Amino acid sequence: MSDSVHPSAKSQDSARRRVAVLGASGYTGAELVRLLSTHPHFDIAALTADRKAGKLMGEVFPHLAHLGLPRLITIDEMDTESIDLVFCALPHATTQKVISALPRDLKIVDLSADFRLRDPEVYATWYGHPHQALELQAEAVYGLTEFYRPEIREARLVAGTGCNAATGLYPLLPLLAADVIDPDDITISLAAGVSGAGRSAKEHLLYTEVAEGVAPYAIAGHRHIAEFEQEFSRAAGRFVTCSFIPHLSPQNRGILATVFVQGEAKAVHETLTEAYAEEPFLSVLPLGAAPSTRDVRGSNRCHLGVVADRRRTQSGEGRAIIFSALDNLMKGASGQALQNANVMMGFEETAGLAGAPMFP
Amino acid sequence: MSDSVHPSAKSQDSARRRVAVLGASGYTGAELVRLLSTHPHFDIAALTADRKAGKLMGEVFPHLAHLGLPRLITIDEMDTESIDLVFCALPHATTQKVISALPRDLKIVDLSADFRLRDPEVYATWYGHPHQALELQAEAVYGLTEFYRPEIREARLVAGTGCNAATGLYPLLPLLAADVIDPDDITISLAAGVSGAGRSAKEHLLYTEVAEGVAPYAIAGHRHIAEFEQEFSRAAGRFVTCSFIPHLSPQNRGILATVFVQGEAKAVHETLTEAYAEEPFLSVLPLGAAPSTRDVRGSNRCHLGVVADRRRTQSGEGRAIIFSALDNLMKGASGQALQNANVMMGFEETAGLAGAPMFP
Amino acid sequence: MSDSVHPSAKSQDSARRRVAVLGASGYTGAELVRLLSTHPHFDIAALTADRKAGKLMGEVFPHLAHLGLPRLITIDEMDTESIDLVFCALPHATTQKVISALPRDLKIVDLSADFRLRDPEVYATWYGHPHQALELQAEAVYGLTEFYRPEIREARLVAGTGCNAATGLYPLLPLLAADVIDPDDITISLAAGVSGAGRSAKEHLLYTEVAEGVAPYAIAGHRHIAEFEQEFSRAAGRFVTCSFIPHLSPQNRGILATVFVQGEAKAVHETLTEAYAEEPFLSVLPLGAAPSTRDVRGSNRCHLGVVADRRRTQSGEGRAIIFSALDNLMKGASGQALQNANVMMGFEETAGLAGAPMFP
Amino acid sequence: MSDSVHPSAKSQDSARRRVAVLGASGYTGAELVRLLSTHPHFDIAALTADRKAGKLMGEVFPHLAHLGLPRLITIDEMDTESIDLVFCALPHATTQKVISALPRDLKIVDLSADFRLRDPEVYATWYGHPHQALELQAEAVYGLTEFYRPEIREARLVAGTGCNAATGLYPLLPLLAADVIDPDDITISLAAGVSGAGRSAKEHLLYTEVAEGVAPYAIAGHRHIAEFEQEFSRAAGRFVTCSFIPHLSPQNRGILATVFVQGEAKAVHETLTEAYAEEPFLSVLPLGAAPSTRDVRGSNRCHLGVVADRRRTQSGEGRAIIFSALDNLMKGASGQALQNANVMMGFEETAGLAGAPMFP
Repeated sequence: MSDSVHPSAKSQDSARRRVAVLGASGYTGAELVRLLSTHPHFDIAALTADRKAGKLMGEVFPHLAHLGLPRLITIDEMDTESIDLVFCALPHATTQKVISALPRDLKIVDLSADFRLRDPEVYATWYGHPHQALELQAEAVYGLTEFYRPEIREARLVAGTGCNAATGLYPLLPLLAADVIDPDDITISLAAGVSGAGRSAKEHLLYTEVAEGVAPYAIAGHRHIAEFEQEFSRAAGRFVTCSFIPHLSPQNRGILATVFVQGEAKAVHETLTEAYAEEPFLSVLPLGAAPSTRDVRGSNRCHLGVVADRRRTQSGEGRAIIFSALDNLMKGASGQALQNANVMMGFEETAGLAGAPMFP
Repeated sequence: MSDSVHPSAKSQDSARRRVAVLGASGYTGAELVRLLSTHPHFDIAALTADRKAGKLMGEVFPHLAHLGLPRLITIDEMDTESIDLVFCALPHATTQKVISALPRDLKIVDLSADFRLRDPEVYATWYGHPHQALELQAEAVYGLTEFYRPEIREARLVAGTGCNAATGLYPLLPLLAADVIDPDDITISLAAGVSGAGRSAKEHLLYTEVAEGVAPYAIAGHRHIAEFEQEFSRAAGRFVTCSFIPHLSPQNRGILATVFVQGEAKAVHETLTEAYAEEPFLSVLPLGAAPSTRDVRGSNRCHLGVVADRRRTQSGEGRAIIFSALDNLMKGASGQALQNANVMMGFEETAGLAGAPMFP
Repeated sequence: MSDSVHPSAKSQDSARRRVAVLGASGYTGAELVRLLSTHPHFDIAALTADRKAGKLMGEVFPHLAHLGLPRLITIDEMDTESIDLVFCALPHATTQKVISALPRDLKIVDLSADFRLRDPEVYATWYGHPHQALELQAEAVYGLTEFYRPEIREARLVAGTGCNAATGLYPLLPLLAADVIDPDDITISLAAGVSGAGRSAKEHLLYTEVAEGVAPYAIAGHRHIAEFEQEFSRAAGRFVTCSFIPHLSPQNRGILATVFVQGEAKAVHETLTEAYAEEPFLSVLPLGAAPSTRDVRGSNRCHLGVVADRRRTQSGEGRAIIFSALDNLMKGASGQALQNANVMMGFEETAGLAGAPMFP
Repeated sequence: MSDSVHPSAKSQDSARRRVAVLGASGYTGAELVRLLSTHPHFDIAALTADRKAGKLMGEVFPHLAHLGLPRLITIDEMDTESIDLVFCALPHATTQKVISALPRDLKIVDLSADFRLRDPEVYATWYGHPHQALELQAEAVYGLTEFYRPEIREARLVAGTGCNAATGLYPLLPLLAADVIDPDDITISLAAGVSGAGRSAKEHLLYTEVAEGVAPYAIAGHRHIAEFEQEFSRAAGRFVTCSFIPHLSPQNRGILATVFVQGEAKAVHETLTEAYAEEPFLSVLPLGAAPSTRDVRGSNRCHLGVVADRRRTQSGEGRAIIFSALDNLMKGASGQALQNANVMMGFEETAGLAGAPMFP
């Protein structure tokens, strides 16, 4: 990838850094707190949740009650002076207003969709309204760590990727950059766990509506397609799009992308293996093996597998199928965010993220 | 489809018919018993399960204990004289031996894979050994009711389809027959519940191995591909194959196939709507809507949905994505088997199969 | 129990009866529609859902879309003239107002909690406000069919039991009536599926909050305790209460009650076996066997099991543990409601309810 | 509890210690490896699995493939010279033979049931055969850390508790020792996740047999009752038993015990609060609050809750209900084992166990 993994681990400042989590009452906020609670260099200075301000974090998330966390406050109550970095886990659209109001000297890792798309017109098309903070959007670095490491190191504002987007980008970006697949023939079928939809009380997310069944969602066009197009095109040096259908799978965590491409499986496998050889969080399985979301659960890992498709093209060329698995709350959101924060702060990139997956 | 649905309902013999279920200790066998227990024309004369012979059905399946069923016997103990039709729910390979030994005047609905493939060489390739009952294989009618109704009406031996195969064939056969999609560009990504793997004590089917995660299986080539190729090619009048990946989804029942094709969504939708307009068990949802396996659970229904793909071909032609949902134990196995038995016996085709899906 | 099961099946009016389901947009409403769709004597004349009036039932519940159901209307739009019986599946508290406004000649099976408690003071205590329809409350018959059959046959208004209550009453009422257990030493620990909480978009019912874990709820006192006390006391001829804790289990359907009592297991088992010998929907398993909710899923059945407790009382007397399993949407709600409607109409009691449980 | 938590953390030897995991192909073995992979003082020197010897750990547990673990070997192949401590995660009965053959200078933390019961006759009664290593049994210390800390510190062989036993002992031991409940009136109803049954391919543990339902198991008498009786009696100074029913809950991890006792809730709550005030892994929730297994998932924590029972004794005395939640693979098995290993080695007791629970 773009740079070595542990660039300044040795030279890092030994002093601890203070962070805030904005939107700590959502699942990605809670996951950040879980990770931060054992992080060697970060301390939690503030947790905000406007509608639940005044409550203890342990009332909102009992699994974190024993951690001695600061009480939830509103964003306005936060003392930004004492804070080095902010994780912003707020809903889309409100995020751009909140971040615009934050001091310019605060480093920010944003987990919303607000700063992922570089082209304001594309943003307006997919999100239905003009962007309200164009300077910030221009400044933001796309948070797919392995591909933007130098930029993230210098960034003030890093925009976390979509969780589905990350799952599809890892298997495809190296292939498009290396020109080993046909950029006009990419199909992504994806299954995603429920936690990606957040902790919002919506009928279609009830246990009874989700358990014991599977169905596609966002079939008219999922917003992460815009991210695919942006990053695919950057990697390929021309416009690239894809067919993309996500499905809601009856599980808490985990995304599996199954990617159908035109290209030789062996070349695909070699390209991915080489691309991620030095990456601490990515594994490319042996050719012919496939990953499971169970094997990355709770970890910051992404596992990739490649198999030759029995079907060949009409002209006899090969096709390949690639599988990509990650935990949407970790490598797809909060783990990625912490990885980026580590890079921004000059810490070892794996700090606080070394935990092995939890199975079963 | 090939014929009207209720051809001889009026002329049917009012006498009840006696059936046996061979392999009643598996899930498809139990599902047959569930359906037969309220069937208006069939009585259960015998239940066999060689390894559990002597046991009460209620010991093997407590949910059926109240039905006053005959005790489990071996196949050898079965009195075939008194039986009109046999449902054969035995494992692959052993089935062909068992059926070869049955009297020629017995009607048989087989749920195994043994008689699905018309070409002995194809069978040998996919199942790894020569077929042991070639005459029976030649005689067997493929059990996709809506497409083989006249043949099934006259058949002695009907071979139930693979459950994954049925899920993929319903959306594609009318399109290939009507030539509204490119037969060289078919991709099927499928999610299947666990009951399709049967009641066998295997490590990878344990709750702890399946729950809370999703993964592909049979990635080197699932045997149902042979069924796809056989039936696709028959419908298209030329050889047709597809890219196909099934995934194991953490749910008891239900298969969802997501099918990516080259063709205009509107034409695809119209073709399917027309093809299944008179079919009692198939519903084509409005264009742009997608089905869920939850909505067919426990029923003999198959729901289809069509959406236009945002991606177009390089030359600007349209692409479509089709979704197909059914219950693997019902329309994918035992419900289909009973539907075929109804046809073979001249009963109304929906007899015993009118139950609405169970949700949640 | 109190009467024979099929009292007037032979003399029943052959004409079909027309029913309405008020509150058809909830799970119990949908389950009623599922059952009514194959009922031999009832036709669905109207479906109401005030907030979703104007929609097709298939938009609200896609699994029922194929049934050709009437469009959802408001209660005010309902033509009560043409209706013989109303199933009222509305929320608590609003129900009493709605039913008060219905014509007096309409038979009503209510599934809410509004008319379960005979004592207005007890109602006010548990529900926090005075009852608004005391005459109706006085008139209502408690809908535990097996114990109130003669009253239900003559009733105009039948009040469906709580689903947890039914699960605990079946194992205990015969024992209290027969005086084979100590009425002062009853402990009920219960696990309930999520559908009992209805289709309301509440955070604690989200898939992510429920899956992969278990926890007690309503620990300060569940309202069904009032039903236990009312019916236990009636059976015992003196005031009887119990310790009761329900738990939310990660499953759609099913309640299992585990009941700890002081009494000899053999006598307990014999008493239950005899009590339910003629009941079509209750099974008492052999002594030492235990039921599972899986084995009653989707059916109107209740399975009971008895085992001797290893622990004896200090004075050496025996203790027993009784298990009771039913499907909360069926025998605990909609199945029970239909059973009662059958009794009220003089139909065979099992009409429309003969379906075997669905497993897996 | 019996001692301070971090007795010799300061004086600990800074050198790393080498451990082996015997039976690394089971769930508790894998969980140990997960924990050890980030432990500050332990290195994994050997992993054994007789039937899978020669395989990579990553073939057996893909979620651990990236850890660079030693290849699986047989126990005979293990070089005990280089090892300081052995975790023994082998099946019951075979364990005693294996441990008998290990060198006497090896510290051992056993996770099987073989050394939990101090009385050989009790062992023989519950396990159906005489114990084969009586000297070891006499030497073994019961591994409920908080109650045996001084003994564990000096122990060579520590016997891990049953996972159900631990869940019931935490809420009850302090109460029996403090005499605030009636020792003759203890009822434990427990729900346990599936991973407690291990990774054995048994029909009743299949996904399809477990999902979407709940049922009791081992109703004739679960072996953990013997542990309850042993430890209850020790705490109370007289023989104490209990009514005990475990249920299999459709979830991977987590045990919830609901304990019904005679005693005043306030005194119960105060006693537990005081008993565990200094314990790093135990939390007593505020009076009237209840824990969920979700809130301890993946962590070494045990959460306790107390509520007053509405039912009082006939003489008017109070009753209380206590809830206890832990993760069976962690505090109920591998986490406990590592905690004990830390104590045995003089490490800080929480080393490698500080990870917060994972939710959702």
